[in-house]
Amino acid sequence: MKAKLLISSLLLCAVATQAQNLKSPDGRLECSYGVDNGKPYYMLKKDGKTIIEKSYLGFVLTPYAVQPYTFKNTVDNSDIDFYSNFEQGTVKKTSFSETWQPVWGEESEISNSYNESKVEFTQKNTSKKFDVSFRLFNDGLGFRYEFPEQQKLPHFVIKQELTEFKTADDNTSWWIPGDYDSQEYQYAECKLSEIKANFYKNVRDNASQTFFSETGVQTPFLMKTPAGKFILIHEAALVDYSCMHLEYDPIGKKLVSHLTPDAKGNACYMQTPCKTPWRTITVVENAKELLASRITLNLNEPCAYSDVSWIKPVKYVGVWWEMITNKSTWSYTDEFPNVKIDETDYKNAKPNGKHGATNQNVKKYIDFAADNGFDAVLVEGWNIGWEDWFGYSKDKVFDFVTPYPDFDVKMLNDYAHSKGVKLIMHHETSSSVRNYERCMDTAFRFMKHYGYDAVKTGYVGNIVPRGEHHYGQWLVNHYLYNIKKAAEYKICVNAHEAVRPTGLCRTYPNLIGNESAAGTEYESFGGNNPEHTCILPFTRLVGGPMDYTPGIFEMDLTKLNPDNHSHVNSTLAGQLALYVTMYSPLQMAADLVENYQRFPDAFKFIKDVAIDWQKSVYLEAEPMRYITIARKAKNSDNWFVGGKTGLESRTSTIKLDFLDPDKQYVATIYSDALNADYKNNPQAYTIVSGITNSKAVLSIKTVAGGGYAISFVPATAKDLKSLKKLK
Amino acid sequence: MKAKLLISSLLLCAVATQAQNLKSPDGRLECSYGVDNGKPYYMLKKDGKTIIEKSYLGFVLTPYAVQPYTFKNTVDNSDIDFYSNFEQGTVKKTSFSETWQPVWGEESEISNSYNESKVEFTQKNTSKKFDVSFRLFNDGLGFRYEFPEQQKLPHFVIKQELTEFKTADDNTSWWIPGDYDSQEYQYAECKLSEIKANFYKNVRDNASQTFFSETGVQTPFLMKTPAGKFILIHEAALVDYSCMHLEYDPIGKKLVSHLTPDAKGNACYMQTPCKTPWRTITVVENAKELLASRITLNLNEPCAYSDVSWIKPVKYVGVWWEMITNKSTWSYTDEFPNVKIDETDYKNAKPNGKHGATNQNVKKYIDFAADNGFDAVLVEGWNIGWEDWFGYSKDKVFDFVTPYPDFDVKMLNDYAHSKGVKLIMHHETSSSVRNYERCMDTAFRFMKHYGYDAVKTGYVGNIVPRGEHHYGQWLVNHYLYNIKKAAEYKICVNAHEAVRPTGLCRTYPNLIGNESAAGTEYESFGGNNPEHTCILPFTRLVGGPMDYTPGIFEMDLTKLNPDNHSHVNSTLAGQLALYVTMYSPLQMAADLVENYQRFPDAFKFIKDVAIDWQKSVYLEAEPMRYITIARKAKNSDNWFVGGKTGLESRTSTIKLDFLDPDKQYVATIYSDALNADYKNNPQAYTIVSGITNSKAVLSIKTVAGGGYAISFVPATAKDLKSLKKLK
Repeated sequence: MKAKLLISSLLLCAVATQAQNLKSPDGRLECSYGVDNGKPYYMLKKDGKTIIEKSYLGFVLTPYAVQPYTFKNTVDNSDIDFYSNFEQGTVKKTSFSETWQPVWGEESEISNSYNESKVEFTQKNTSKKFDVSFRLFNDGLGFRYEFPEQQKLPHFVIKQELTEFKTADDNTSWWIPGDYDSQEYQYAECKLSEIKANFYKNVRDNASQTFFSETGVQTPFLMKTPAGKFILIHEAALVDYSCMHLEYDPIGKKLVSHLTPDAKGNACYMQTPCKTPWRTITVVENAKELLASRITLNLNEPCAYSDVSWIKPVKYVGVWWEMITNKSTWSYTDEFPNVKIDETDYKNAKPNGKHGATNQNVKKYIDFAADNGFDAVLVEGWNIGWEDWFGYSKDKVFDFVTPYPDFDVKMLNDYAHSKGVKLIMHHETSSSVRNYERCMDTAFRFMKHYGYDAVKTGYVGNIVPRGEHHYGQWLVNHYLYNIKKAAEYKICVNAHEAVRPTGLCRTYPNLIGNESAAGTEYESFGGNNPEHTCILPFTRLVGGPMDYTPGIFEMDLTKLNPDNHSHVNSTLAGQLALYVTMYSPLQMAADLVENYQRFPDAFKFIKDVAIDWQKSVYLEAEPMRYITIARKAKNSDNWFVGGKTGLESRTSTIKLDFLDPDKQYVATIYSDALNADYKNNPQAYTIVSGITNSKAVLSIKTVAGGGYAISFVPATAKDLKSLKKLK
Repeated sequence: MKAKLLISSLLLCAVATQAQNLKSPDGRLECSYGVDNGKPYYMLKKDGKTIIEKSYLGFVLTPYAVQPYTFKNTVDNSDIDFYSNFEQGTVKKTSFSETWQPVWGEESEISNSYNESKVEFTQKNTSKKFDVSFRLFNDGLGFRYEFPEQQKLPHFVIKQELTEFKTADDNTSWWIPGDYDSQEYQYAECKLSEIKANFYKNVRDNASQTFFSETGVQTPFLMKTPAGKFILIHEAALVDYSCMHLEYDPIGKKLVSHLTPDAKGNACYMQTPCKTPWRTITVVENAKELLASRITLNLNEPCAYSDVSWIKPVKYVGVWWEMITNKSTWSYTDEFPNVKIDETDYKNAKPNGKHGATNQNVKKYIDFAADNGFDAVLVEGWNIGWEDWFGYSKDKVFDFVTPYPDFDVKMLNDYAHSKGVKLIMHHETSSSVRNYERCMDTAFRFMKHYGYDAVKTGYVGNIVPRGEHHYGQWLVNHYLYNIKKAAEYKICVNAHEAVRPTGLCRTYPNLIGNESAAGTEYESFGGNNPEHTCILPFTRLVGGPMDYTPGIFEMDLTKLNPDNHSHVNSTLAGQLALYVTMYSPLQMAADLVENYQRFPDAFKFIKDVAIDWQKSVYLEAEPMRYITIARKAKNSDNWFVGGKTGLESRTSTIKLDFLDPDKQYVATIYSDALNADYKNNPQAYTIVSGITNSKAVLSIKTVAGGGYAISFVPATAKDLKSLKKLK
């Protein structure tokens, strides 16, 4: 990934007098900043209208936890004010513009242009200081605190960050509940002032969850103003810091940052020079522009690796959905009330007869992957320890290298490789992160020995060390440690239950996926709302790709497991749409082999669809309602369109002017049948093929929970003869 | 270390009826047990007289920390009763006797004989159960809880252990304050009922300290009954469990176990089958028998290593005392307000001119070690990071492999090896244990590459992960992980600030030392009481050897550093005594080279004294008052005697009947001069040599804070001619 620097006019103009504002390259966004009664603040306007009102900046610090001399004395927990009595100092202004090429992505080139002000703020009574760097893009603002090296502040502990986001209006908002340990919720839609009343609306049980406030929400946090603008608050480049939530203050009518604390109630342990992640406020005129915004990626550092040849997008199948639906099990036996990794004798244990990761079953998936051009097969439940892996705060829960007796790791890898397929490793940690770190090098060496080059990690349950949270600084540090360590072995990471992505895949592109939201698995745990996949691209996906694991063809899960009465809330055609609308360099065909074999014509789209893109065009978009995207495959003339519909049926009308005007294409449209119904008739779809070109306009009907997918392939002379024009 | 089994009469007699008591092999100790109103209990008598009155056994458990569904609900923290409603089941009785050979120790053979009852207790309402194994030796009782594998109790969390020790009398006791993070206190002496009034008597500041109760004390906890018997409470084989303190209950007049909690307030995460450490009650007629007791070692498992040829006792000097006295520094420069291990540029930093671990200084110590027959040189402050290593809760505080610019790791190791000397590695972790675990393999490989085979570890300051404590299960697990990992590399470990030893050196003899008490360093931090070294052998040393670092010849520390007004509270002769009285396979001559060069005649004893023993004879002993021990060197006919005196001057009178009656010996006596005074004239000593034999009786005067040392070497014909008889 080589950054191509187009313009880089680093015009450093250190101004002694206060420069009070900053404009975006197109001049439409304006950020002003200063000190008001000793409190640093910023404001944001677009076209002269206020988007963010005066919002204050600062921190509450806490002393180092010096132990008491006697337990009669209390520890000094008094807050340290790092938010008032400031004065503004020098402002440094710079401009920057580049185009860079991601290793993988929604497009092959990304433009990155901004104007920047770095503003110095000094606390008068303590002489401690921080700078705030404001970067103003045409589509939004990023700012971060930077703490220069200074004698008065060599190290410090942040108890809370007090960054405010005071919007001008009582915007409509889309959000999930603020939680230190889980993001696996569905989205609520309400006014800011209604958050409290709606807090529990979409709460559901999770293996680890810790709320902090009834007006606490997570980022990316999306709003729509009364004037129809969209505002998105998130963070970029979350490194060695605690993940930021937001808390809505109904009295001050503002959102305030809320950092995930550690076991002692502190958020971040800092050492100058250092900086916070970027706080981002994307401001765009419509939801399509939101999808096209690259602020989060642009605020991350360029790729940290000199060689990225080993990082590849992957389309895969897996021994997974059958466990999620409880058709088969991760565990091998029902004999043991518990397991000790180094002691339990599996060789003589009686198999439960439902184990998913057997040689026979895995070979079936390998054959299917090879026959259909998939790159890889994920296998979960291959390693010992699943009999009591969860809920007991086990320390040594897995060793990541010992297969169950019915999983022949060498034979299966050799078999897969002989067919041009790779196996994907699975490292469920059960959130016992010390154990995982102790095993990590050995586990990665084991992977390389057998030829694995990608791992899906998991962090189910409460964190060990106990008292830490999934989104605290301790774990944020761990996840990146894992990614960097994997890179040493040229291994790609798809981290589930880890902290939500913040664009770090620009810097560490071996982070090829994250979960960090309710994925398809919840279709087996009671179902996702049909509109769920119509909000994720505007929120969760802003930070990085999601391993959503789409492609379920059998919505009636009693067919897989008579005891599972959950229903997949989507039509089959809607599932196909997700391969385009839910961008990811890692795409799974999640359903069972036999379900794909029942619908080979529809399955053809999953086989055909690309997973890496030269260009993306956002055709239709309204959060929670619908989303339609066209994408051109990298190094190919093929285009693919996905259109996903939320709770209300609709007709999608799209102009094909994104196609090459000099070409004719064979279009194949996979769409909901007229009598399709996501609940009662989800498998009713139609497939139509015909010749078309860039001048055409298509209208496609979709039902609630439905959708459609189209492939466009340049037409051959034979096609032009044999196929009709598309109507 | 091959265990030689003399008798092993494992007579398993499972009795359906309750067997209510157990006798020691000599029949003098009697342990009874049973259930009283549903509560399991035990009692202990000696010669028919009660030592421990009816004392109850049990636990408070806590549910797994299931997170709240909403934060309105509270987590279920309700205690789970695992101490009442029990009934007694089967009792299994066995007897055991063996003699085993430690890799190193106070003697070359250790006898281990006991009778055992394993008693089953089942909680009637829950069907959960535990067994208690009682092992009765001639000199005391060990018992532990064993939790068999059971469907009703696959995993559980111990909130507290409720083991009671109800002594029959208000005994005199010797103790240090109960603390989750530090053992570096001096001992108090008072009645049990007076603990509360004396709690703060010996409290002093430590880098990490957490008290839990004003009647909380640590083990080994020593008592003397009105009848003159000694009772010592400690634990043996602390593995994957939390360290036990004791809390005196003044109303119930009993001591109750108190486990070190984690950040969530829970003590131990358990999985059946499992067991607690042994709880030990040594009961002896006098303090000499206490020193001879081997209960703690005997209750540990046999050596875990098949090859122990690489584990050797070590006599060493070091670049250490000069830093402790602040004559020189661990750090290299004063330029940086803080340090980032991967970023700070030391190469261009200005040295502070006081750095201890310089090539020149280390070579001086290597030369001195080689010239005087020492095995090794410890060097602290050799690696980057010391500029801000402590007090800031730094995560990545050291990397353990990067030397300061003035320490040439290859040259110095090569130089040392060319002279038959080894360097000892130093791994100060600053209690950032995740960082240490991440670095550990690399650090050990680095050591082996350069030829180090021993490491001194350190855990100064509050634990990271924050909220964990030095003596909690998390850290107990870490320390053993470190020892086992070191063994993979054939490295010996001397762990400072780690959990107090519990005899694990039997199983893992590469644990060649621990600190776990106030060592000689405190002589530079205000001074240890003169009686301090007269209590440690009866308490702290019961669990394993201490790296006390004796041998200070210059008591006036202003001579080293004009700003250090601390005084070493011992005579020079008293320092020599410690090499015999403070048993350790790892003995340091801690003072500066130049101070030894001033007293070459006295230094000769440190050069001569053995560090591994065939036999030890305890001649005089009274806690806090005095201790005199004779030891025969392993594979040698030489004997050494050490006599240490507390706060009151005295005359030590010892019969030499431990000597071989067929031999004449040259005895060299190093003792306090008549005008010696630990405060005002500590360097006044006399050295007398002469011929003696096993029929002689010696009377040696010692002053307060003083002591003496004697070497006995079989006399040659020449000696017999040239030397006079000792008077």
